[in-house]
Amino acid sequence: MYRTHTCGELRLTQKGTEVTLAGWVQTVRKLGTAITFVDLRDRYGITQLLMGEDLSKQLDENPLGREFVLQATGVVNERSNKNSNIPTGEIEITVTSFKILNKSAVPPFTIQDDTDGGDDLRMKYRFLDLRRNAVKKNLELRYAVNRAARNYLHQNNFMDIETPFLIKSTPEGARDFVVPSRMNPGQFYALPQSPQTFKQLLMVSGYDRYYQIVKCFRDEDLRADRQPEFTQIDCEMAFVEQEDILNMFEGMIKSIFKDVKGIDYTETVQRMTWEDAMWNYGNDKPDIRFDMKVLNLKKPSTVYTDKQDKAALINGADFKVFDEAETVVAIAVPGCSEYSRKQTDELTEWVKRPQIGMKGLVFIKVNADGTYKSSVDKFYSEQKLKAIADAANAKAGDLVLILAGAEERTRKAISDLRMEMATRLGLRKDTEFKLLWVLDFPLFEYDEEGNRWVARHHPFTSPKPAQIETMINNNPVIDNAAEYLKHPYANIKANAYDMVLNGNEIGGGSIRIFQRELQEKMFAALGMNEEEQLHKFGFLLGAFEYGAPPHGGIAFGFDRLCAILGGSESIRDFIAFPKNNSGRDVMLDAPATIDEKQFDELQIKLNLK
Amino acid sequence: MYRTHTCGELRLTQKGTEVTLAGWVQTVRKLGTAITFVDLRDRYGITQLLMGEDLSKQLDENPLGREFVLQATGVVNERSNKNSNIPTGEIEITVTSFKILNKSAVPPFTIQDDTDGGDDLRMKYRFLDLRRNAVKKNLELRYAVNRAARNYLHQNNFMDIETPFLIKSTPEGARDFVVPSRMNPGQFYALPQSPQTFKQLLMVSGYDRYYQIVKCFRDEDLRADRQPEFTQIDCEMAFVEQEDILNMFEGMIKSIFKDVKGIDYTETVQRMTWEDAMWNYGNDKPDIRFDMKVLNLKKPSTVYTDKQDKAALINGADFKVFDEAETVVAIAVPGCSEYSRKQTDELTEWVKRPQIGMKGLVFIKVNADGTYKSSVDKFYSEQKLKAIADAANAKAGDLVLILAGAEERTRKAISDLRMEMATRLGLRKDTEFKLLWVLDFPLFEYDEEGNRWVARHHPFTSPKPAQIETMINNNPVIDNAAEYLKHPYANIKANAYDMVLNGNEIGGGSIRIFQRELQEKMFAALGMNEEEQLHKFGFLLGAFEYGAPPHGGIAFGFDRLCAILGGSESIRDFIAFPKNNSGRDVMLDAPATIDEKQFDELQIKLNLK
Repeated sequence: MYRTHTCGELRLTQKGTEVTLAGWVQTVRKLGTAITFVDLRDRYGITQLLMGEDLSKQLDENPLGREFVLQATGVVNERSNKNSNIPTGEIEITVTSFKILNKSAVPPFTIQDDTDGGDDLRMKYRFLDLRRNAVKKNLELRYAVNRAARNYLHQNNFMDIETPFLIKSTPEGARDFVVPSRMNPGQFYALPQSPQTFKQLLMVSGYDRYYQIVKCFRDEDLRADRQPEFTQIDCEMAFVEQEDILNMFEGMIKSIFKDVKGIDYTETVQRMTWEDAMWNYGNDKPDIRFDMKVLNLKKPSTVYTDKQDKAALINGADFKVFDEAETVVAIAVPGCSEYSRKQTDELTEWVKRPQIGMKGLVFIKVNADGTYKSSVDKFYSEQKLKAIADAANAKAGDLVLILAGAEERTRKAISDLRMEMATRLGLRKDTEFKLLWVLDFPLFEYDEEGNRWVARHHPFTSPKPAQIETMINNNPVIDNAAEYLKHPYANIKANAYDMVLNGNEIGGGSIRIFQRELQEKMFAALGMNEEEQLHKFGFLLGAFEYGAPPHGGIAFGFDRLCAILGGSESIRDFIAFPKNNSGRDVMLDAPATIDEKQFDELQIKLNLK
Repeated sequence: MYRTHTCGELRLTQKGTEVTLAGWVQTVRKLGTAITFVDLRDRYGITQLLMGEDLSKQLDENPLGREFVLQATGVVNERSNKNSNIPTGEIEITVTSFKILNKSAVPPFTIQDDTDGGDDLRMKYRFLDLRRNAVKKNLELRYAVNRAARNYLHQNNFMDIETPFLIKSTPEGARDFVVPSRMNPGQFYALPQSPQTFKQLLMVSGYDRYYQIVKCFRDEDLRADRQPEFTQIDCEMAFVEQEDILNMFEGMIKSIFKDVKGIDYTETVQRMTWEDAMWNYGNDKPDIRFDMKVLNLKKPSTVYTDKQDKAALINGADFKVFDEAETVVAIAVPGCSEYSRKQTDELTEWVKRPQIGMKGLVFIKVNADGTYKSSVDKFYSEQKLKAIADAANAKAGDLVLILAGAEERTRKAISDLRMEMATRLGLRKDTEFKLLWVLDFPLFEYDEEGNRWVARHHPFTSPKPAQIETMINNNPVIDNAAEYLKHPYANIKANAYDMVLNGNEIGGGSIRIFQRELQEKMFAALGMNEEEQLHKFGFLLGAFEYGAPPHGGIAFGFDRLCAILGGSESIRDFIAFPKNNSGRDVMLDAPATIDEKQFDELQIKLNLK
């Protein structure tokens, strides 16, 4: 061993002990000619080394540079100038001898929390970036989450069972990465998008509580903060109903909160139907750390058919923007009634950006003195403005923001605006955590292009028990595309659930189909004929013939969960060796060309356009 | 929840409790018309259900089949006919109601320890094979080993850090599996053969104790019991020397023994140099559960130059077979002196099989009465036979077996023969465990075809510290192929170590090169020019510029380790979804063809021969 102690563990109680440390040179400070201080860093902390006159002279001849690897032996002494910011701040090592274990070129950026390195440089030299405390803390948190999840699942009788990585390509939704098989020329493996079918087979096999923390792969065009390979906490249980899964896994997340963050999350985890989430927040993963619920002033007659809008509040004013819009929605932003013209103009520009896509923004200022001021004063009396503001739960001093337009876009826009205003007002605190279950998702989404259904979650999700008959007894084919919402399948709800943390979906799952007949109906609804079903999923349909138990599960996005717990929105900071937005590892310079010999052995060739 | 208890947990103390169980029908036995017994099975055990007259009548109309999924509610009662073989054998459930949750077709083989299903059938229906207790026990053991390893490493400050799966192809030795990149047309990722370079980068980054239980991939022609994807316990440490690694990881294996098998492995783990292993056992992973050491009666002058053979014992007898052989080796097989002619003939045929490849077998029977009988009586006097037998440590009643031929083949043959005889004699007990470190491997092997060196372990392995100079100061090029053994590189020993358990290599590792100059020399020795070095390993050479610490590590073959602990030689039994010898998953029917659209998007096409 090159050391007796780490750079993080020595304290005043060890005064007088001879020790040997090894680590990296963080800083070198000369004090006159007689004394040199070296801050030595390792994974565990920083310890100050004191080099006396002789050693300082040696250093004059062979200077230490930043990031040199140093081994130093000496005696633990009390520091005269104590540093209360670090745990080793009361001591220093009076060095008697040292050895440079390895030199270092000058790093391309400083190894500090506030580094001077840009993103690209830090990714290229990721091995140096990983030395920074800020990144190290993220990976430590990731390991702590990993450990906490495993411990909880182990205590609850879950078994970690490894599923294969070289599987079969069954592209549904996302694209598979494929792997040519040299031993089976012309054939390809696929990398798993998730172990979904395997964990279901394990349920059929009787392993009633399965988990895995496992890499998954999706060849998607990478939006910001997506990675082609990502990690899931993947779980499945047999002989359970939805309620059992919700209880088990809010237990897991609470256990992670406790172990990793020291937080006792004792409050009941809220639950909300998908319809309520969309209706009240414009979003199926609402951030409920703050209120600002959506007031529905007008909705199309075809959706949210059970919900009542407040159209009476805006009708009859001859305000064309509202009258012609499909949807009119509002939020009351707390404490912003005194926004200046400049500020409301800026907000209007914000909602008109292409990402939001609104034509404009209507506001009502609920002044502290009880008066109302609006951009649509011409159309609405103060009394009517008051009625709208009241319906939006606005209080004196609030600013009501109203958007109007096509249903889908407008609903998304009000959600985006709500989040933006919350961010501006500091309501999205990264030290506050609010969990939420979103339930009762639609089982299907309508695919306009194919005039058919697609699975909202995935094709293995069960409908609500009461709707199984509806699904089995109706033909999934949509005769009249214009009226797809009237098809019996349009209203089938899934036995599916998402766990939302602070406005991010951190996990999602469902009770699965376990009856062959129902599974075949589902595949048919998605446009798969029998041959295709058997080619792609014959093994699963076959397994359902031999005593498949009722089962369900969930998968958590491990990277995202870590990021949120770490108070960040970027998963890349929580992955040791992430890829960039083109799917490249810039440190490795991968992907890359391969040898002729490899093409030859795999019996493939390029076909570049 | 579909159950209140599992099928493994009810005991007599719960007598009178109303319970609901769910599981699979193992057997149905009718007792007259009034009573039906059903054995219900789940992951946790088997519980007997008793159905009275009414329910039995229901079953007559709708019979239960094997592997039906059943939910049954009833009361725990004491059994009249207790079964002491199972933990639930004292109770039964007097069923009040039941529900068939799912039916099952008749399984293609019986779900029992001694199944009637052949290998192929069981692999095709792996989801049913996994229900068998024999397979379940293996996966449970695998999870226990996983858990034990993680706990030990966690306690010793190791951090689980995930490394990427989509990396760069750097074929050295084994072939990479490659993955075409759609976003980077013409370029490919590779799947990692191991996280070797990443764990070294993590050491450079200061994460001084890393581990991962991780899938690795090698596209090799599959010999028996190899899998294209396999799992490693992958570990690396910084600021350590070989001794530190040996201590840490024999600690891990001992901890696994304790946690998983309840075995206190208190004895010192033996250590042996590679040369001694080859010399005394003909093998670099000797099984030391039994003795039967090799007697070297003759060796070539070019290898094992420090070792003395016992040529004097066989020389001068004018026995051409020995005189003309490069190598003559012997073992003394205990208690076999009374082998019949038929038995010795059979052994002779055994060594003449192509897999062994010897021309014949010489034996000396050390009879109980002190006489000696040999197949070479003509050439050797009884006194000489005695001298040879004594040198082989033969005792009265033993049988000395002697092989002669070319060095490499003969040495392997004597090792194979030693193992075979031990197996026949029952000396390889699967409940006995003997660990061994094999040390001081040669750094290089000679590649005849390329007349160059190849890395025996891998290109990142450090030479012994005393031999670094030899490596740096000599040109790796081999001028005279015939005399390659005289090249200074031929004698360089590696700072490498293998852990051997019962004659199987379960782990291997090395102290790594951490100096750029030495690493470049290593790559050059392997025939890589500078351009190639930078293309393939530029990131690592670059990292070595910035303060790489001394480091080393080890990787354990997790599948193999589990198999040996489970008393099996087949890793396939310890993998949930293994592939066959053609790399196929016969259950999934993968690999398979892919769609035209996928070829199109990936911009590749087939080039079948």
